[in-house]
Amino acid sequence: MHTGVERMSQTINSGKSRKPVMENVPQLSINGKYPLLSKIHSPEDLKKFKPDELQKIADECRAYLIDVVAENGGHFASSLGVVEMTVALHYVYKSPYDKIIWDVGHQAYIHKILTGRKDRMHTNRKLNGIAGFPKMSESSHDAFGTGHASTSISAAAGLAAARDLSKSNEKIVAVIGDGSMTGGMAFEAMNHLGDTKSDILVVLNDNQMAIAPSTGGLKNYLINISLNKTYNKVRKFIWDSISLLNNDLGETAKNAVHKIEDGIKAALTPGAFFEALGFRYFGPIDGHDTEKLVKAFKEMRDLPHPKLLHVITTKGKGFKPAEDNQSKWHASSGGFDTTTGKSLKKPGEALPPKYQDIFGQCLTELASKDHRIVGITAAMPGGTSLDIFQNTHPKRFYDVGIAEQHAVTFAAGMAAKGFKPFCAIYSTFLQRAYDQLIHDVALQKLPVVFAIDRAGLVGEDGPTHHGSFDLSYLQPVPNMVVMAPKDEQELRDMIYTASLYEDGPVAVRYPRGTCAGLNIDAAFNRVEIGKGEIIRDGTSLAILAIGTMVETALDASRLLEQENIDALVANMRFLKPLDKAMVHAIAERHEKIVVIEENSTIGGLGSAVNDYLRKEGLSNSVLTLGLPDEFVIHGSMNDLYRLLELDAENVSRQVSNFYNGIATGKKESSQSTIRTEKLA
Amino acid sequence: MHTGVERMSQTINSGKSRKPVMENVPQLSINGKYPLLSKIHSPEDLKKFKPDELQKIADECRAYLIDVVAENGGHFASSLGVVEMTVALHYVYKSPYDKIIWDVGHQAYIHKILTGRKDRMHTNRKLNGIAGFPKMSESSHDAFGTGHASTSISAAAGLAAARDLSKSNEKIVAVIGDGSMTGGMAFEAMNHLGDTKSDILVVLNDNQMAIAPSTGGLKNYLINISLNKTYNKVRKFIWDSISLLNNDLGETAKNAVHKIEDGIKAALTPGAFFEALGFRYFGPIDGHDTEKLVKAFKEMRDLPHPKLLHVITTKGKGFKPAEDNQSKWHASSGGFDTTTGKSLKKPGEALPPKYQDIFGQCLTELASKDHRIVGITAAMPGGTSLDIFQNTHPKRFYDVGIAEQHAVTFAAGMAAKGFKPFCAIYSTFLQRAYDQLIHDVALQKLPVVFAIDRAGLVGEDGPTHHGSFDLSYLQPVPNMVVMAPKDEQELRDMIYTASLYEDGPVAVRYPRGTCAGLNIDAAFNRVEIGKGEIIRDGTSLAILAIGTMVETALDASRLLEQENIDALVANMRFLKPLDKAMVHAIAERHEKIVVIEENSTIGGLGSAVNDYLRKEGLSNSVLTLGLPDEFVIHGSMNDLYRLLELDAENVSRQVSNFYNGIATGKKESSQSTIRTEKLA
Repeated sequence: MHTGVERMSQTINSGKSRKPVMENVPQLSINGKYPLLSKIHSPEDLKKFKPDELQKIADECRAYLIDVVAENGGHFASSLGVVEMTVALHYVYKSPYDKIIWDVGHQAYIHKILTGRKDRMHTNRKLNGIAGFPKMSESSHDAFGTGHASTSISAAAGLAAARDLSKSNEKIVAVIGDGSMTGGMAFEAMNHLGDTKSDILVVLNDNQMAIAPSTGGLKNYLINISLNKTYNKVRKFIWDSISLLNNDLGETAKNAVHKIEDGIKAALTPGAFFEALGFRYFGPIDGHDTEKLVKAFKEMRDLPHPKLLHVITTKGKGFKPAEDNQSKWHASSGGFDTTTGKSLKKPGEALPPKYQDIFGQCLTELASKDHRIVGITAAMPGGTSLDIFQNTHPKRFYDVGIAEQHAVTFAAGMAAKGFKPFCAIYSTFLQRAYDQLIHDVALQKLPVVFAIDRAGLVGEDGPTHHGSFDLSYLQPVPNMVVMAPKDEQELRDMIYTASLYEDGPVAVRYPRGTCAGLNIDAAFNRVEIGKGEIIRDGTSLAILAIGTMVETALDASRLLEQENIDALVANMRFLKPLDKAMVHAIAERHEKIVVIEENSTIGGLGSAVNDYLRKEGLSNSVLTLGLPDEFVIHGSMNDLYRLLELDAENVSRQVSNFYNGIATGKKESSQSTIRTEKLA
Repeated sequence: MHTGVERMSQTINSGKSRKPVMENVPQLSINGKYPLLSKIHSPEDLKKFKPDELQKIADECRAYLIDVVAENGGHFASSLGVVEMTVALHYVYKSPYDKIIWDVGHQAYIHKILTGRKDRMHTNRKLNGIAGFPKMSESSHDAFGTGHASTSISAAAGLAAARDLSKSNEKIVAVIGDGSMTGGMAFEAMNHLGDTKSDILVVLNDNQMAIAPSTGGLKNYLINISLNKTYNKVRKFIWDSISLLNNDLGETAKNAVHKIEDGIKAALTPGAFFEALGFRYFGPIDGHDTEKLVKAFKEMRDLPHPKLLHVITTKGKGFKPAEDNQSKWHASSGGFDTTTGKSLKKPGEALPPKYQDIFGQCLTELASKDHRIVGITAAMPGGTSLDIFQNTHPKRFYDVGIAEQHAVTFAAGMAAKGFKPFCAIYSTFLQRAYDQLIHDVALQKLPVVFAIDRAGLVGEDGPTHHGSFDLSYLQPVPNMVVMAPKDEQELRDMIYTASLYEDGPVAVRYPRGTCAGLNIDAAFNRVEIGKGEIIRDGTSLAILAIGTMVETALDASRLLEQENIDALVANMRFLKPLDKAMVHAIAERHEKIVVIEENSTIGGLGSAVNDYLRKEGLSNSVLTLGLPDEFVIHGSMNDLYRLLELDAENVSRQVSNFYNGIATGKKESSQSTIRTEKLA
């Protein structure tokens, strides 16, 4: 029997040949629990079933998804919500010839299950396993890679324009949630498409949720559409009546009415918003009725031009605990009962708090004393723990939706009026507001604080979510202060320091995940701007570390002791302004300096130190350790640190080699290329 | 008599005190030609007039604007279109207590004239003069600085949220064009506001133009609203009829109709699009009728909650040549007849072509041979000269509107299907698509070409438009190739080279303005990726230059000859991949190296060279010249080069000092702070 992978290779259709890279991955055999699903290795197999068998297949997909996530963890509630939709899409459309793009892509598990990857779902998000998001290099069925929100319609528009120029006739479908629809680029894409005649289908997956409940005016509008069930019935009546009314009018008025009849009819459709942008609107329809979905998709497939199908779904559908608490079950680390959702993990020691919680609690405390403080999130109240702040200071909390650009300029507006906004945004998502950070905040020296969450590696979410670049892209921005705490105590102190800084924007970058578990000072300590500290003195060489890498450097220094290498370790605290005095003093004492940061080695702390030393005419040897000049793959944090040689053992080995003048494996050398190919 | 500046200081209302910085600027006395305007030094003076005198004031404002721009140049047609609107706004609202935010801000000249700056309009955009855009530090009437499109509603939302928390009651107005409305962040802001009850007015200045004609589905929608004049008349009739129809219905249907009546009425308004987002829509009204505008603004002022007033204006209004060719008259360099628009400048020698034209022509030629090439612009067909391409290859040309995010991911979609998209975007606007460039293009190694226009200084447009950061923010992005041509021949060769590159994205950065005027090879020459060239050998020291600074370095080397300093000059061509072999060879021959780039000295070529030398253990002295770590003010290119010491004379002086071991004035020292304060 052929595998899905083989079939994919045969039917590959993209301009460039892309080799599926899943060799050597162990397969999970699908047992008798899924009699229909076990026969499906590609969408072509799905098409052999009758329409009335599809709900059974959907049920098996859902059960399989629950089994897999209960065992291995992963994104969850979003995929549960699109089981029927995914089955229907692949039943009607011919992937990979037709292109289906999943916005964000954390809801694409059923898509992966149906496109030849079901036997590998247990490797999902693990090192060497399949990715948690669609990935072009993983399967020809992944028409475009996703991970960040609101990109799907733009990508679909590009594929459609390419198709139209090539005069081919594949269908293009973008599936986007109502949460992602609040992102500006989704609007930009629809506005562009609406002015074309390009054949494209946008499926609006409306579950009234992003990760948190959706926000914004558009949300209310969509609710109104779905609640007004009588709307559709009455619409017909009104339409009919317009012609009727014509009879009672004089000639001029009749002509006028006739002329604008189309306009009125369009205005009367529940989707006037989308019609205004030039899309034909259809729906809303029930997203958990496979037969209705198949019928609707068939109709859509045969209609030309840009159109939007509004599908109402329930996030977490079919798994009661997830239906009841959709935010909690957005993703799971696995290990739960597949019926009750109760954890099957043995209660271990309580984990230390997350950096996020320290941030949320700290800001809440500060805000109780400082009434200028407000908290802003772009649809991530839970992920950033800003919900802690929200609970205590609801009037000073703003969730603006998946809208990072707006979040930052909105913050600038508040700062211009004397408030002290804290924008809590993931490092990789702040890339979306780079212009706003420069043009609206830094140029005007407005004291906005960027709480940059998920800075550095994030583990299983992989390359779309690693915060690899923020030190580099923030460093050239004038008027910025950029700092990173070594632990939770310092995070508190830095948040406090940022709240007092009036001269311009401040960025505090901190990682995803749990802290060391320190006892925290109840008092707040102000950190002197631009001042680092030497936290371990040493005579052999110096390690300049920032953020998460301070602890790694300390651990490494202990290992180095065993080799009689006595390393000074400095906690730099600030990328900008750099503590030049400290670097200068250290450089005069230590010929060899190691810089270590959890950021690209290009343009971050290493470059800052190199630039400074060169300017001062200091000729120390410097080794910079950090993220390589490549996109880092997904895997557990420990796997990735080891792979990138940023764990204490590898750091100590590299420092030792550097100290002893032994050439060390360089991140940008061919080694790294081999590593990437092996693991991609 | 008090000046407007004094009055501004008295009425200052922002959270922080901001000192107007226009001392020592020569004033132009307003002569008898403007009898009413000469009495207006602030909006309070305007309020002393009667409503029926406002059109006369508007006429004087327009005549004065024409006189000023004819003499001095500047943005033009946009301000002509909002003369009446500006007069009416300042008549009704109480700036600076009330806040008026001008999106982009190139239409704010009348606003500047009415808020105490009319005597300084002739200094507009000149070194030490007033800025071409609203600027908080220039006047308390500039409620928020602008320059880039689509920011105004976000900033207004921030000001409004701050007001609501402070329980003050100033009014907030954002004036935004239909072109800017296509930018995603405007949508994000409206979606957020629509879910609040915040009192805010968005004035949609609908002239169907950005710099070029507007594009997108929303444009057609707005045209439909304004063309259907009968629409409004018939609306009332339909509304009345709904109640009438009620009489003929059974109880259930009657209830249903009653229940959805509001919904139907809302759907019947021409602004259903905005109503869907939670805004109340009013209009459209004539934007050149001062009395109607005053009446409408008074009504708006007294209505709570988010609302949008749709105003139809004519870009270039009242100056026939501008009305007839709005794109051409978007801005003017001055020196034209105030009635006919004919140039009064003596015909000089023909200028060499612009870099933009070389790009546009080159891409057009290449596309005739390579059918994969497509051209994409975000509302800048003229500015980027992509209109040359459009004329020859209209089907392969895409103007997506002011929508940089969408432009880049749209390009990624086309590249995924085997096309070769050239995205022509200004350096400073590409900041808006930074995430898309990383996440949708570079991560997937898609061969999109970024033609980065306006890289480096742009002159009079100032800090919002200088392309100061692109080398820095592109360098850390994996898989990128980043190059910059030294002249127009090399631009052609690099565009050609980029068209052949298949392994990932390429950025070619080039400046605003005219080329050297070289004779161009008809043939295309491929540039080897990552290879620089030594264009002047020398024995004293080496200058590594990139892009525009290559010519400056050559000029400086000639000046240095007179001091018997024999400088090697290398044209680096590539920031990434850096020509390490060449740098290494040069570093071995020359102890002293100067790096020069028209980009921030942080994270650009200087940092790349420093990182490389340090890695190789080479201890050369390096002096990096480039843009300082501050936002560069506006002024002519020559003024700015001189000010930043990047003209040939200053470069040669600095290189000479460096060569001779004399400490050179450093950009980041207190010197620079003084300079900025003096000139800001």
